[in-house]
Amino acid sequence: MSTAAKRIVLASRPKGAVTPENFRLENHDVPDPREGEVLIRVTAMSLDPYMRGRMDDAKSYAKPVEVDQVMEGGAVGEVIASNADGFAEGDMVFGMTGWCDHAVMPAKELRKVPDGVPATAVLGVLGMPGFTGWYGLTHIGKPKAGETLVVAAATGPVGSMVGQLAKHKGLRAVGIAGGAEKCAHAKEVFGFDECLDHRAYGDAREMRKALGEACPDGIDVYFENVGGKVLEGVLPNMNTFGRMPVCGVIAWYDGAGADEANKLPAAWRSILVNRLAVQGFIIMDHWDLLNDFLSVVAPLVANGTIKYTEDVAEGLENAPEAFMSMLKGGNFGKQIVKIA
Amino acid sequence: MSTAAKRIVLASRPKGAVTPENFRLENHDVPDPREGEVLIRVTAMSLDPYMRGRMDDAKSYAKPVEVDQVMEGGAVGEVIASNADGFAEGDMVFGMTGWCDHAVMPAKELRKVPDGVPATAVLGVLGMPGFTGWYGLTHIGKPKAGETLVVAAATGPVGSMVGQLAKHKGLRAVGIAGGAEKCAHAKEVFGFDECLDHRAYGDAREMRKALGEACPDGIDVYFENVGGKVLEGVLPNMNTFGRMPVCGVIAWYDGAGADEANKLPAAWRSILVNRLAVQGFIIMDHWDLLNDFLSVVAPLVANGTIKYTEDVAEGLENAPEAFMSMLKGGNFGKQIVKIA
Repeated sequence: MSTAAKRIVLASRPKGAVTPENFRLENHDVPDPREGEVLIRVTAMSLDPYMRGRMDDAKSYAKPVEVDQVMEGGAVGEVIASNADGFAEGDMVFGMTGWCDHAVMPAKELRKVPDGVPATAVLGVLGMPGFTGWYGLTHIGKPKAGETLVVAAATGPVGSMVGQLAKHKGLRAVGIAGGAEKCAHAKEVFGFDECLDHRAYGDAREMRKALGEACPDGIDVYFENVGGKVLEGVLPNMNTFGRMPVCGVIAWYDGAGADEANKLPAAWRSILVNRLAVQGFIIMDHWDLLNDFLSVVAPLVANGTIKYTEDVAEGLENAPEAFMSMLKGGNFGKQIVKIA
Repeated sequence: MSTAAKRIVLASRPKGAVTPENFRLENHDVPDPREGEVLIRVTAMSLDPYMRGRMDDAKSYAKPVEVDQVMEGGAVGEVIASNADGFAEGDMVFGMTGWCDHAVMPAKELRKVPDGVPATAVLGVLGMPGFTGWYGLTHIGKPKAGETLVVAAATGPVGSMVGQLAKHKGLRAVGIAGGAEKCAHAKEVFGFDECLDHRAYGDAREMRKALGEACPDGIDVYFENVGGKVLEGVLPNMNTFGRMPVCGVIAWYDGAGADEANKLPAAWRSILVNRLAVQGFIIMDHWDLLNDFLSVVAPLVANGTIKYTEDVAEGLENAPEAFMSMLKGGNFGKQIVKIA
């Protein structure tokens, strides 16, 4: 027995920006679940910037996806056949299924969707992006009431978590986002004190000036998830003993930047002069804290203190387009793909 | 009453590299010490890279020296008149006198030279450079036996302290220095396992390759005191969870670099991918640990476990030339200027 299924594989590695030719939709059959496994019908999958890194063959914190193998990614779905204790048909579960509409997974690599939250929350606000924001802000950013925080992609699932938690702790939260509509959303929905439209600033110098005006007391915590001219504009505004959790450099993911002339000396001088703590982190190293995160943040999501925004694409076949758009900043909040 | 004295003032701010015209030797009279003060005859003063930063008008961790004011610096000398309890004529003391041959100082800004070590040790191995190396390595570098450490300026007073302490803790210590003679000295006198002559490598790519060969297990701790192509060569060789105390970027101090095309994206990507901890620090923030440092390291200096090398210039009037030479890497060990 087997089940007819669809999946998207990496057809070729990108040379620069990702193109549709880098993906291929395939039909295949998934086998019945063996002992300890379950068969899942995927209802929604997650699109995240880290996936861009997996498409390259460069050294990174995880192995690249091999050409002709299924694209890596997390998803939520319904158990439609179970051969594992504790999992029954109809259970809603999530895990790293890859880009597909059906998957057979070991039960120990799955978690059940908590009660009282929409299933897709586990992909965003209560999933890897929310956890990333919570971990980086609280464990590396060490925010203190009265300080100023800056985070980019302010309406995205990481940035909106960081901004809301910072406000919750009594900081001034300044967001950066692409376009007036996102900036208004960041302030109105997520409660940012200020949000700068990075498209309004032509270069790092203009970004620097605008950040200086938006942060009259300087910047104490910069949650780094974009790199590029935002980072260059932030560095001169950092306060002494500032903290900089680094969880992504999306501006430098998609082909740009490798040959760009940028200002490493200025960055290192700022680290020195301001005694900055710059700490890279990858949330996969910190799964042991997931329950801490969920115990603190799930109630805040359930009672509406922490809000979240989703962008929904429909259909597995549209995942590549939604992914390419997200890398260019086309999404508003957490990008998901609804399936079936 | 007063005492005829000489001092060197900042005549003008450097435009790019420091030139002799930026300094002026002056005669002046120092007054008799008031209540709580002592008059010191300086016997040796210290020259350090941080002084270059004080000559500029840019935001830094300390106020710049004003034009026509005495150049900042530490020195050791003999008390020749005391109006302070606990200090007597003949006492050897050290403090921030500036570049001069006589100074009146508040006694509370001075410390006595410890027994059993040469007076000039308080300027180098047991002074700010040694303390900087000890603090950065132990408190930020967090070295563990079996790991690999890299430090540049390996025969200098910071680098030689870092390398010797690392060896003392069971690490592989790889130094970088300018020229075959310094490299031999680093290995023979300070016990580095390997020392690379940075002049032998034309660019960051060659530096990277040489470091990869010298550090077959990668780099766990890079004590950053130079910046430039060494940093660029180190970054791709850093191991996961590496640490990078940043105490200086001398390659970028002296005019060069401000407009250089450098690789900020590559640096930030390495911080992320390798989960590096990059922490700027200024030793002035950590004076509370000075006694910890001295209690650990002074006995190691006294019994010869920690060795040190001094370069000696003679005469206050030769301080500018020695300083300019030091910024270009002309010194071998700790640069001091003997006076009188």
